[in-house]
Amino acid sequence: MTRTNNRAADALRPVELIPNVNKWAEGSCLIKWGDTHVVCTATIEEKVPTWLKGAGHGWVTAEYGMLPRSTANRMDREAKKGQQGRTQEIQRLIGRALRGCVDLRAIDGMTVKIDCDVIQADGGTRTASVTGGFIALYLALSKAMKQKKWEKLPVRDFVAAVSCGIVDKEPVLDLDYQEDSHAMTDSNFVMNAHGGIIEVQGTAERGTFSPEEYTKLLALAQKGIGELIQKQRAVLMTGTGNE
Amino acid sequence: MTRTNNRAADALRPVELIPNVNKWAEGSCLIKWGDTHVVCTATIEEKVPTWLKGAGHGWVTAEYGMLPRSTANRMDREAKKGQQGRTQEIQRLIGRALRGCVDLRAIDGMTVKIDCDVIQADGGTRTASVTGGFIALYLALSKAMKQKKWEKLPVRDFVAAVSCGIVDKEPVLDLDYQEDSHAMTDSNFVMNAHGGIIEVQGTAERGTFSPEEYTKLLALAQKGIGELIQKQRAVLMTGTGNE
Amino acid sequence: MTRTNNRAADALRPVELIPNVNKWAEGSCLIKWGDTHVVCTATIEEKVPTWLKGAGHGWVTAEYGMLPRSTANRMDREAKKGQQGRTQEIQRLIGRALRGCVDLRAIDGMTVKIDCDVIQADGGTRTASVTGGFIALYLALSKAMKQKKWEKLPVRDFVAAVSCGIVDKEPVLDLDYQEDSHAMTDSNFVMNAHGGIIEVQGTAERGTFSPEEYTKLLALAQKGIGELIQKQRAVLMTGTGNE
Amino acid sequence: MTRTNNRAADALRPVELIPNVNKWAEGSCLIKWGDTHVVCTATIEEKVPTWLKGAGHGWVTAEYGMLPRSTANRMDREAKKGQQGRTQEIQRLIGRALRGCVDLRAIDGMTVKIDCDVIQADGGTRTASVTGGFIALYLALSKAMKQKKWEKLPVRDFVAAVSCGIVDKEPVLDLDYQEDSHAMTDSNFVMNAHGGIIEVQGTAERGTFSPEEYTKLLALAQKGIGELIQKQRAVLMTGTGNE
Amino acid sequence: MTRTNNRAADALRPVELIPNVNKWAEGSCLIKWGDTHVVCTATIEEKVPTWLKGAGHGWVTAEYGMLPRSTANRMDREAKKGQQGRTQEIQRLIGRALRGCVDLRAIDGMTVKIDCDVIQADGGTRTASVTGGFIALYLALSKAMKQKKWEKLPVRDFVAAVSCGIVDKEPVLDLDYQEDSHAMTDSNFVMNAHGGIIEVQGTAERGTFSPEEYTKLLALAQKGIGELIQKQRAVLMTGTGNE
Amino acid sequence: MTRTNNRAADALRPVELIPNVNKWAEGSCLIKWGDTHVVCTATIEEKVPTWLKGAGHGWVTAEYGMLPRSTANRMDREAKKGQQGRTQEIQRLIGRALRGCVDLRAIDGMTVKIDCDVIQADGGTRTASVTGGFIALYLALSKAMKQKKWEKLPVRDFVAAVSCGIVDKEPVLDLDYQEDSHAMTDSNFVMNAHGGIIEVQGTAERGTFSPEEYTKLLALAQKGIGELIQKQRAVLMTGTGNE
Repeated sequence: MTRTNNRAADALRPVELIPNVNKWAEGSCLIKWGDTHVVCTATIEEKVPTWLKGAGHGWVTAEYGMLPRSTANRMDREAKKGQQGRTQEIQRLIGRALRGCVDLRAIDGMTVKIDCDVIQADGGTRTASVTGGFIALYLALSKAMKQKKWEKLPVRDFVAAVSCGIVDKEPVLDLDYQEDSHAMTDSNFVMNAHGGIIEVQGTAERGTFSPEEYTKLLALAQKGIGELIQKQRAVLMTGTGNE
Repeated sequence: MTRTNNRAADALRPVELIPNVNKWAEGSCLIKWGDTHVVCTATIEEKVPTWLKGAGHGWVTAEYGMLPRSTANRMDREAKKGQQGRTQEIQRLIGRALRGCVDLRAIDGMTVKIDCDVIQADGGTRTASVTGGFIALYLALSKAMKQKKWEKLPVRDFVAAVSCGIVDKEPVLDLDYQEDSHAMTDSNFVMNAHGGIIEVQGTAERGTFSPEEYTKLLALAQKGIGELIQKQRAVLMTGTGNE
Repeated sequence: MTRTNNRAADALRPVELIPNVNKWAEGSCLIKWGDTHVVCTATIEEKVPTWLKGAGHGWVTAEYGMLPRSTANRMDREAKKGQQGRTQEIQRLIGRALRGCVDLRAIDGMTVKIDCDVIQADGGTRTASVTGGFIALYLALSKAMKQKKWEKLPVRDFVAAVSCGIVDKEPVLDLDYQEDSHAMTDSNFVMNAHGGIIEVQGTAERGTFSPEEYTKLLALAQKGIGELIQKQRAVLMTGTGNE
Repeated sequence: MTRTNNRAADALRPVELIPNVNKWAEGSCLIKWGDTHVVCTATIEEKVPTWLKGAGHGWVTAEYGMLPRSTANRMDREAKKGQQGRTQEIQRLIGRALRGCVDLRAIDGMTVKIDCDVIQADGGTRTASVTGGFIALYLALSKAMKQKKWEKLPVRDFVAAVSCGIVDKEPVLDLDYQEDSHAMTDSNFVMNAHGGIIEVQGTAERGTFSPEEYTKLLALAQKGIGELIQKQRAVLMTGTGNE
Repeated sequence: MTRTNNRAADALRPVELIPNVNKWAEGSCLIKWGDTHVVCTATIEEKVPTWLKGAGHGWVTAEYGMLPRSTANRMDREAKKGQQGRTQEIQRLIGRALRGCVDLRAIDGMTVKIDCDVIQADGGTRTASVTGGFIALYLALSKAMKQKKWEKLPVRDFVAAVSCGIVDKEPVLDLDYQEDSHAMTDSNFVMNAHGGIIEVQGTAERGTFSPEEYTKLLALAQKGIGELIQKQRAVLMTGTGNE
Repeated sequence: MTRTNNRAADALRPVELIPNVNKWAEGSCLIKWGDTHVVCTATIEEKVPTWLKGAGHGWVTAEYGMLPRSTANRMDREAKKGQQGRTQEIQRLIGRALRGCVDLRAIDGMTVKIDCDVIQADGGTRTASVTGGFIALYLALSKAMKQKKWEKLPVRDFVAAVSCGIVDKEPVLDLDYQEDSHAMTDSNFVMNAHGGIIEVQGTAERGTFSPEEYTKLLALAQKGIGELIQKQRAVLMTGTGNE
């Protein structure tokens, strides 16, 4: 198997993280990961869901959508037919991933909503949403800190995500849509900067993975996520923010 | 009243039309009209709605959406609550406006769907959708012509749209969100390159317009739409397309 | 073109306004406009929508529906499939038109709901709804005045609506369904008793109007609306009410 | 207990059956039964539901709705919130009642839809719908016979409905809304011209009926339905139709 | 006609009432009535519906559902398509039946929800739901009495239900699915231990019943319900409960 | 930590697989896994989803539901509010797991629908659904083989599922509800009889897992799934079926 642009089996596609793309949101990021483009925004609301009242901590949640023509064939608009199972599955994953990196007690009484909208899709939209969504979340929480909502940034760790899979019997990092369609098996990984696993989600519709193969995918994911978190740090630490 | 950036009463905000922004769509355009940004894509489907079968002509229709954080306060996602009245009103307007500029008999058996998704809103999203949607539509029909779907481009005329209103008793062209909120009255105009009116939609929630005022708004709209159509021509005729 | 019953180009169909047709409603009117029959009721509720609380003024809103067999071919019941885009577009228009004629500050804390239900349709159902809805609204506000809810009738002006269009190249007033189906262009006008324009809504699916033509339609509308407001006055001032 | 207008325990309220009130429907009837007013229309469609294809017989079905202000307090519009349980229960009853009086084999391949829309309600809307719906159905089938769709009228028998209940321990015929609210128990009866029972539906929320009481209600219902069927015959046989 | 297992015309199928089948519910019962199996649970909630606040009494309500493969042909899941008319009709009946046997004033401020879920269906699911639902309700109210929520059991009477119908011209008790499909007419009866009628619901889609026949069905129902209430007493009085 | 009943860290709760519990379904199984009880049925339909037509293979899909009172607190019925995100996530998992064990080409033109309905929940409902659903699926495919729909059983391998998690820092097999609520992290595993991984789904809302910990969970899962598949074999091979 030759990958597009002779990409190595353990190489990420080019990833660009463009912070502060939205005039209104408390935090935002456009992530361009190969040909997958996702707009992520973070909104801070001074309230919590009803079922959380009095629990002593705040909340982080995510919503996910795709523009109808983000895909090769136009998809029906979910505003017309309701959110489908795949959408719900994905936005629940993003929410859990990003909730895990925030000190919820520190944001008691508040909800951060991360919106991830796919403008163009070419594989890996959920991992791009987690990785870009983290930037939006971080920026929003930083901005609130500057506004004295809290003294210390309530972020426990960096978080990023990547997919790995077995294509033509070879474990590879970061599948694009073409590869994903031919993969025997495919797994998404969410990890933090210390290599801790926050979520794994692996499926083998056309075969199975052996525990050994799964260990190889996990190692590839660790490498990829390490590189992604380095990029996140570069963007957030070098002051490219515009507020 | 002083307008932002000392804009004259009869001046448009800066408008940028960026064609071919989407890898998958048959035609696409990102329109940046002041701080209003709308992604427009055109999809050609080789079928017509059931109720049109055998009618001897094709169809052009539009759908409109806003990303939840395209606005100063986050809006609930329509995928969760269904399309609201305002959305339906707007997408019906876009559809009528763009349908009016296509030779429907020439595209018999086909439907062109224009998707207009607002990434960031600052007033005038429906007129930006018509103006940018026209570019997406034109590009899609041109591409199909190159693929020999038809010999002659089935576009009858250029179409653009603009809003005008009466702010502090003065008729002004192209209201931004701030102005729109304070306008006594406000009207949207859709016209073609020959000055023919395709649609008008005027509302006076906080007052009324006299017929004389309405004539002035109409004249402002003619000026603005003339400039917009010039921009559309420049983009489409100078080969900035990337196919 | 010869119009049904040799009606002149600038003549309305016969219009009958029958007030107080409903035993329960605070105000009501059955409008028979040619073969278009609409039951309008006004309900006063002692509360305002959540988003309006504390705004210092009340609200007027409208809902619109058609009985399934109000049309030549039976329509599916919206209770089964939800309110369609056309319905939402129309009821929003009726609401804006009637809200414009009420002193909202004077009805602070209250909402008036106008229900317009089409029993039989033959063109012009939205203009009939505005015109008949005004009577229901006026009667409800008068009744509340008699009950000492307010000292002065909170009605700023009379309001009526009519459609005009270009049929066989000739501008005509008040299209019936047959004419509407053949019109090149067609526009709805809402005006008050002083000739002020409250709303215009013009569409040209099968052509365009020139600004000159639009001016002629506006003049026809002024004539028609003048006559309609005279009828409204006659009904309301001559005490045909039955309370 | 004294009934309104000193009505006897076994007396119906005044009932008026006005046929052919709708310009478009194949058959129609406005029934004014006391202050309960229901518009009934019948539509003949040349198709059957999917699940009935090839069964060798046609179908009769009914839909029921109430205008929002048909009641003392405005009801939310079902087009906005969907058909409620009560509505579905009632329209299923009307459908069964009227289906029972048609020779379904004779109308093979066709569906008759009866729409019953309550313009004003004062108790007994479901029984008024059956009684008035029968007229609309009969007129539609007669009209089709005149158009040679069938040689013999496919009506097996006349059908009407009435409610009875026990109010202040006394069995009474035809409850109005006031009486219905105070009844211990209340039952609806649908019968044909030969005294055959097509449907009974009795409920005792605030007590029970004994079998003896139920027998008395049944006798009252027989009397009332006999009178209603006489009225139906009078309307249908004396040629008051307008086609 | 010979009934399955030579059952007599006035004989019930074997009925088994298994109390306390659910670990979590305040009261529960699995009813196996022939091959019809329904799980009934009762939940006590310390609140009343909004519209009942301040009325001085509590509420009893029911919900009904069928597992998709409870029937010979798989039914679509209502969680996907919404509750259908038949479901709503049935759960309203169960609610009225069970509400009738509770002293609502004694449970002021509380709602008891009876859930009846059909695991396997073979005719008579609504009557099984009433009969088994009564056990769940009784157990829940007893348990609350033991917890000192009230001193006296707020049950006014026992309640059970059965269907009767005319099959091959013969009145029979307790139709199974096969018989129900061939019955000319069929009626459901809900009664209490004193022979009082709480609800009757009779339908004659393929014929009519005479008043005499209806009296016979009523007598059969009295016999069957008497036997069912005896079984209910046996289960509740002999301490087979497991709490 | 002491587990209920002194269960060892690597021990399953008692699991009972009761085949053929449903009179109508082609295959069925009631699985009682500790206090978690799920009814699984398999339905074979002689058609495929529209999007699969002509693909040369059949389909296996699953639906999942919980009875309202299967949980300690009553849940709202999804028939009333629609399928929630969690439900969709779970039924998609069950579908992928069971689809993976069937030779889809061999069942071309057919769809097997697995319905998993939770009667009582105490943790692990999704893994119980996979494990019990496999029995229902196997029985349905065997029955069809006996009816000569295919010569060879189109089952590629046995499949079962189990959850593992880290509770009080210790990796444990098969969490019950109580343990699940306190687990730092928790993962579901689906495997076949040859130790191949079909799906993993791990979440760490209150912490992270290290890769080493994840390897331990995987080993526990292998042990548990091995035992479950032995149980499945015992049930299927010893002819306890009743057809």
